[in-house]
Amino acid sequence: MLSAAELAAVYGVRAGTAEARASAADGAGDDVCHFCPPVRRGDQPAWHPPAPGGGAYVSGLRVHNSLTRSKELFVPAQGRRVRWYTCGPTVYDVAHMGHARAYLTFDILRRVLEEELGYEVEYQMNVTDIDDKIILRARRNKLVRDYRAEGRPIADVRADVDAAAAAFDAKLRAKLAQLEAPLPAGASPIEADERLELLQVQRLKLEQWAETEARIAVARAGADAAALIDSALEPLAEALDARLGDSVCDQAVFEEHARRYEADFFEDMAALGVRPPTILTRVTEYVPETVAFIESIIAKGLAYESNGSVYMDIGCLRGAGHDYRKLMPAGADAETTDAQMSEGEGALGGCSSEKRSRNDFALWKASRPGEPSWPSPWGGGRPGWHIECSVMGSATFGKNMDVHAGGADLKFPHHDNELAQSEAYHGCAQWVNYFWHAGHLHIKGLKMSKSLKNFVTIKQALGAHSARQIRLMFLLQPWDKPMQYSDQTIGEARATERKLRDFFGVVKALRRDAWLGRPTAPTPAERALAGKVAAFRRRAREALLDNFNTPQLMAHILALCADVGEHVRATAKEPQSGALVCSDAAVAVTRTLRVLGVAEQDEFGLPLAGGDEGGGGSREAHVTPYADAIVKLRDQLRAHAKASKDGALLALCDGVRDDALVALGVRVEDPTGGEANSSWRLDEPEALARELDERRERQRDKERASLAQALPTKKKELEKARLAAVPPALLFRSDKYAGKFSAFSEEGLPTLDAEGKELSNSARKSCEKEWRQHEAAHKAFLAKPEAYLADLTRAVESLEEQLARLGGAAGRGDSA
Amino acid sequence: MLSAAELAAVYGVRAGTAEARASAADGAGDDVCHFCPPVRRGDQPAWHPPAPGGGAYVSGLRVHNSLTRSKELFVPAQGRRVRWYTCGPTVYDVAHMGHARAYLTFDILRRVLEEELGYEVEYQMNVTDIDDKIILRARRNKLVRDYRAEGRPIADVRADVDAAAAAFDAKLRAKLAQLEAPLPAGASPIEADERLELLQVQRLKLEQWAETEARIAVARAGADAAALIDSALEPLAEALDARLGDSVCDQAVFEEHARRYEADFFEDMAALGVRPPTILTRVTEYVPETVAFIESIIAKGLAYESNGSVYMDIGCLRGAGHDYRKLMPAGADAETTDAQMSEGEGALGGCSSEKRSRNDFALWKASRPGEPSWPSPWGGGRPGWHIECSVMGSATFGKNMDVHAGGADLKFPHHDNELAQSEAYHGCAQWVNYFWHAGHLHIKGLKMSKSLKNFVTIKQALGAHSARQIRLMFLLQPWDKPMQYSDQTIGEARATERKLRDFFGVVKALRRDAWLGRPTAPTPAERALAGKVAAFRRRAREALLDNFNTPQLMAHILALCADVGEHVRATAKEPQSGALVCSDAAVAVTRTLRVLGVAEQDEFGLPLAGGDEGGGGSREAHVTPYADAIVKLRDQLRAHAKASKDGALLALCDGVRDDALVALGVRVEDPTGGEANSSWRLDEPEALARELDERRERQRDKERASLAQALPTKKKELEKARLAAVPPALLFRSDKYAGKFSAFSEEGLPTLDAEGKELSNSARKSCEKEWRQHEAAHKAFLAKPEAYLADLTRAVESLEEQLARLGGAAGRGDSA
Repeated sequence: MLSAAELAAVYGVRAGTAEARASAADGAGDDVCHFCPPVRRGDQPAWHPPAPGGGAYVSGLRVHNSLTRSKELFVPAQGRRVRWYTCGPTVYDVAHMGHARAYLTFDILRRVLEEELGYEVEYQMNVTDIDDKIILRARRNKLVRDYRAEGRPIADVRADVDAAAAAFDAKLRAKLAQLEAPLPAGASPIEADERLELLQVQRLKLEQWAETEARIAVARAGADAAALIDSALEPLAEALDARLGDSVCDQAVFEEHARRYEADFFEDMAALGVRPPTILTRVTEYVPETVAFIESIIAKGLAYESNGSVYMDIGCLRGAGHDYRKLMPAGADAETTDAQMSEGEGALGGCSSEKRSRNDFALWKASRPGEPSWPSPWGGGRPGWHIECSVMGSATFGKNMDVHAGGADLKFPHHDNELAQSEAYHGCAQWVNYFWHAGHLHIKGLKMSKSLKNFVTIKQALGAHSARQIRLMFLLQPWDKPMQYSDQTIGEARATERKLRDFFGVVKALRRDAWLGRPTAPTPAERALAGKVAAFRRRAREALLDNFNTPQLMAHILALCADVGEHVRATAKEPQSGALVCSDAAVAVTRTLRVLGVAEQDEFGLPLAGGDEGGGGSREAHVTPYADAIVKLRDQLRAHAKASKDGALLALCDGVRDDALVALGVRVEDPTGGEANSSWRLDEPEALARELDERRERQRDKERASLAQALPTKKKELEKARLAAVPPALLFRSDKYAGKFSAFSEEGLPTLDAEGKELSNSARKSCEKEWRQHEAAHKAFLAKPEAYLADLTRAVESLEEQLARLGGAAGRGDSA
Repeated sequence: MLSAAELAAVYGVRAGTAEARASAADGAGDDVCHFCPPVRRGDQPAWHPPAPGGGAYVSGLRVHNSLTRSKELFVPAQGRRVRWYTCGPTVYDVAHMGHARAYLTFDILRRVLEEELGYEVEYQMNVTDIDDKIILRARRNKLVRDYRAEGRPIADVRADVDAAAAAFDAKLRAKLAQLEAPLPAGASPIEADERLELLQVQRLKLEQWAETEARIAVARAGADAAALIDSALEPLAEALDARLGDSVCDQAVFEEHARRYEADFFEDMAALGVRPPTILTRVTEYVPETVAFIESIIAKGLAYESNGSVYMDIGCLRGAGHDYRKLMPAGADAETTDAQMSEGEGALGGCSSEKRSRNDFALWKASRPGEPSWPSPWGGGRPGWHIECSVMGSATFGKNMDVHAGGADLKFPHHDNELAQSEAYHGCAQWVNYFWHAGHLHIKGLKMSKSLKNFVTIKQALGAHSARQIRLMFLLQPWDKPMQYSDQTIGEARATERKLRDFFGVVKALRRDAWLGRPTAPTPAERALAGKVAAFRRRAREALLDNFNTPQLMAHILALCADVGEHVRATAKEPQSGALVCSDAAVAVTRTLRVLGVAEQDEFGLPLAGGDEGGGGSREAHVTPYADAIVKLRDQLRAHAKASKDGALLALCDGVRDDALVALGVRVEDPTGGEANSSWRLDEPEALARELDERRERQRDKERASLAQALPTKKKELEKARLAAVPPALLFRSDKYAGKFSAFSEEGLPTLDAEGKELSNSARKSCEKEWRQHEAAHKAFLAKPEAYLADLTRAVESLEEQLARLGGAAGRGDSA
């Protein structure tokens, strides 16, 4: 077995890091909270409520806790500090709205804690960058890329695709047959439901496969190998992986894949306005800690090695007095189904015969060839899925944390297994005090599912709606119940946004002419409205304290907007009546929206400061001097490049105009003559890009036309030159006169026609004339440079090529 | 006596308003807070602490309460609601920094309550638009305006000015004589101090008057009547007022004056970023309520009418068991002085013989002709100064409020009289639970005083410093102690702003290239820093809970900035190390600064949202992509210029950095080695320009030093060359040997010395040796290019010129 120091040496971790983390984790145990006597709600295992009192800060917040399936008073263990761990993404593909459901929901909850309730949140998120999905995806992408690069002949590709498609088809049908077989006697209704769902999914997959098959058939008829590969990506990738997967040994393949989608994920989060975590940890950075963590569990007799993998021993765990399945107790509202179990173990799991019991789950997975691998006392392998969160959460927060959050689909097995591991490792009864699960996402009424391919990516959603509209849609639905993402709910969000915008517009108009010179003492109506504003502030807080009830809060907001609207309409004849109280209402709403992340900047809502619409200035005012500076710099460069005849620099200047400035929405018009500077103005980047495309297309058209015009001339010239190259003596023997004459004079003039008759006088004269003309042409040809004919031939070929590249008729012929 | 309905008819108040207000005031009495047993601190009258518990919200805030002269736990009576009344401005002139001291200070306290501590503040402010100062100012302005419009001949104006100046002079001198008279026996030390101060003020006034007299003399000599009027405005206004004051009957004169300065005041407040009140009330809008309020006090036998005015009867008040002078008990640290009393009664008060006792003060003042007047049971008159706040505060909050605030100079008599009136009216022991007094303002060490004319208007202050700098100066000093407004304190504020800006700049640069692809797991150093961030959050709150200790809070902020700076310096070789934790630190600081109103928009500090510099409307968010594009373009150019050895282009790149980008406030740091890109951050253009100047100055120093070193060498070379140019035959006839020899050989060797004596052997030999050496030097000289001497001469001249241009010794000569 390797010592910690040896492991550190193997992994080359930064000096001191592993130790420091270990000690931090130990240290954190000292100030762990005190617990009240355990409570049991329903069938749930005992829960130990953190004790209020002492230094504890109690805001009055009650939140649904998955550990009790009830609303509980929220008491963090260390004053205002909230130690919060959220399960982060597995970075194998672009993020979808299911991710938004979790991370945007928790962003809202976190903002309420931080901005409204006075907590100080330490928000840890992990990135799962070791995972079977990543391995498969990265490996298959690489294999297809390599296969494509090999440039096999079309016949080979056809054969490979045929074999891959057949195997794929067989696999799908076998799975369908399996799902269509009757359920074993005594199966639970949940298992029946699950089976039904899986069956639907499988049928859908077969439908999609039929479409794919049709596409393959079309591509197969053509001669384009690349197009055929494109049509059959999935079966081909599976076939290649089956054959060559174990040859992929470079870990960089997996790492690059993960980093790419990690970056993509955080871009999406930023676009949604989700606050970044304060602590971000990647599984790949915690392998030594993971090995040590697992060793410790083995040492306690709660896990065992088998065939190079390590499994948690659920039987022993229970025997040692630990609760297992705290979140989804067997028999509560769900049985463990095989599907859930195998989903938890990953597509590249060991065979189940390695396990002592069906319920045991992998802590460490032996790696086979073609899978990333780290050394361990049990041989090369990698962390199981669940262990990572136990290790990284413990490394940061020690043996207890306040909040653990994740999507509802992670409850079992992931979160239950996490709890089992961590409580086994720490030898404690409660690793997590509050478990918060965001509800599922339903798209147009159906549960979104990766296998169903009915999922919407975040980028797609943001293409259709603004980040604010999406956030409002979230706020209008409970955080811990299934959420509907449909035309109706997004329509409600849009309507809400419009109402808010109208409300702010009305109040801003009211404020624009200040109250100066008008009566200021509040009228009874204004007093009544002021009472409603005060009530709103109270109720807004109450709603948030009641399990983050944002739908209720949004209802309060809209009611206040309506009250203000009514007041303004009723007092339309006394301008500025109620300017102060309506302002106060708008300030209260703005502040609430800011807390929720809806009005992050002042552009939506009212400025909370003194100044009226104060300070700021438009985007245009801000960017103008900068845009001007870029354009001026470019003008200088062009002048310099022209003076010094620096073609590369001129090209760079064109690039600035067509790329960087288009992206910034700066339209530059270069001077058409003289040395004057270019002019510019702000425009929409999209419009500029479109225009640029059109300009380029026109340019191509022009080039195409000029090429198309030049080609026949050049071709004719070539033909003429080829003819002129014929020595006069051979003129009438050449192809041009083939079959016309049968005897020739010494000079090569024809004497007899094809049938052996003498030529007529006139015919002979005509031939002589032709011969003389040709002789002159031939002389002229001989006077040309030696390479003349070769150059001409090349010129014609080049014209044809250029035309083909520009998509002109000459190249593509009838396929165009 | 008029009934309430009759009064309403007379004043034409909006229907229902007076009743509604009365009932609101009554109703508010129902939910008044419960009190703990009264406490006595020192010599103070008993204070009734509001009882925590029940629905009370206790944040832990302790604030200095002028009613006990101690820090007290802050417990508002109605949950999170804070009913706060602040004495507003008397709108007779432009607002000065004394106003800022009060209103900006309370803005900071209010923001902390609202934004940090979770209170809901109802913030009432009044505008004093009936006041003797307004009456005098408005009336005199009008009279001078009218006089000017009459267009009198210059002779008449001269006569009027002479008379006015004589009267003015006499008045000033009489006052001086009165102040120079010995104090009555038994005068208190406070009275002595006060006398001394008044004497100083009076002498200063006389000095100013002497200057005015000189100006009048100049204007008098001319023929321009308007200029003469301008030179003698104050004496003329007084004279006209004495003669014609009682002819001003149009109340609009007073109202217009007040409205103009009210508007001006709120503009100043907006410019300072002071949040507007939620309830704003003007005295003119509450005259009927005032009359009713006074009637009620008379009915209780605690006030009496005298000669059309009404006075509070302090004797009876005390007899009825009320405390008088709760804030400044007689004998505590101040005696009532006549000056204080008369200041409180206004310049247009009735004569003191109307009062039963010296301590009695006016509730209602009979108006004389030329003063605005409202009907009352005691004849035409107007409210006294103190009664307005009692009436308007009671109209809004009823018989009890949580906070009453004002400048320290209002403690006595204004606030003590307010309490007396209100507690008499409501028949209660405590109208105000917490009295908060902002400390005085000292300008360059001296108490600012209107009479001293050493006051600085808010507009002047904002001309010299930004609103943020002024706010920082406030935050760096305790709110309830005298505040220094001096070069030093504003310098500290500027230095603080710079440190914060640098801090944000460093963190933003760190964040710009996100952490993606870098290790994310925190190192021990990052963990230590994270601990400091957590500690900062805790301490920041503790500082605010401790009597709004903003100086302490600012110290915590700067300490955290320093910690982050140190971390970044220490890890300069690992780019993006600590990006997350440094971001978190910057977010914590930004949030705190936002609470304090320093970073209202995102342009100062870090965006709290998800997007990097992302999202909404801030200037920074807008300009970042443009600035980035310029810097990237410049990086490309530098690479191109280096590759193509294009010096002009390199110079252009330097120019972009030092001119265009400095003007745009973009600080660029070029990479010191390798081909990595430069880094940039936004900064103040002025600071960048200053640094550039300093850098250029250093560059000049270096050049100067190198020139100064090169010059003597070159000069020596020139001298040597000039000498070598002399043909050997002429060597001993040259200036160098002038007067040494009298005869020479053919070759030019000296034969006789100056006195005609033959040279000694040794002398001749020495000459011969010299001659030979010179001949060699001359030969060498002849071998040089023809232009050698001319070039050398030009080189020396050029060095001298360059040195002169750089301001070096050669140019400036002995002045350097």
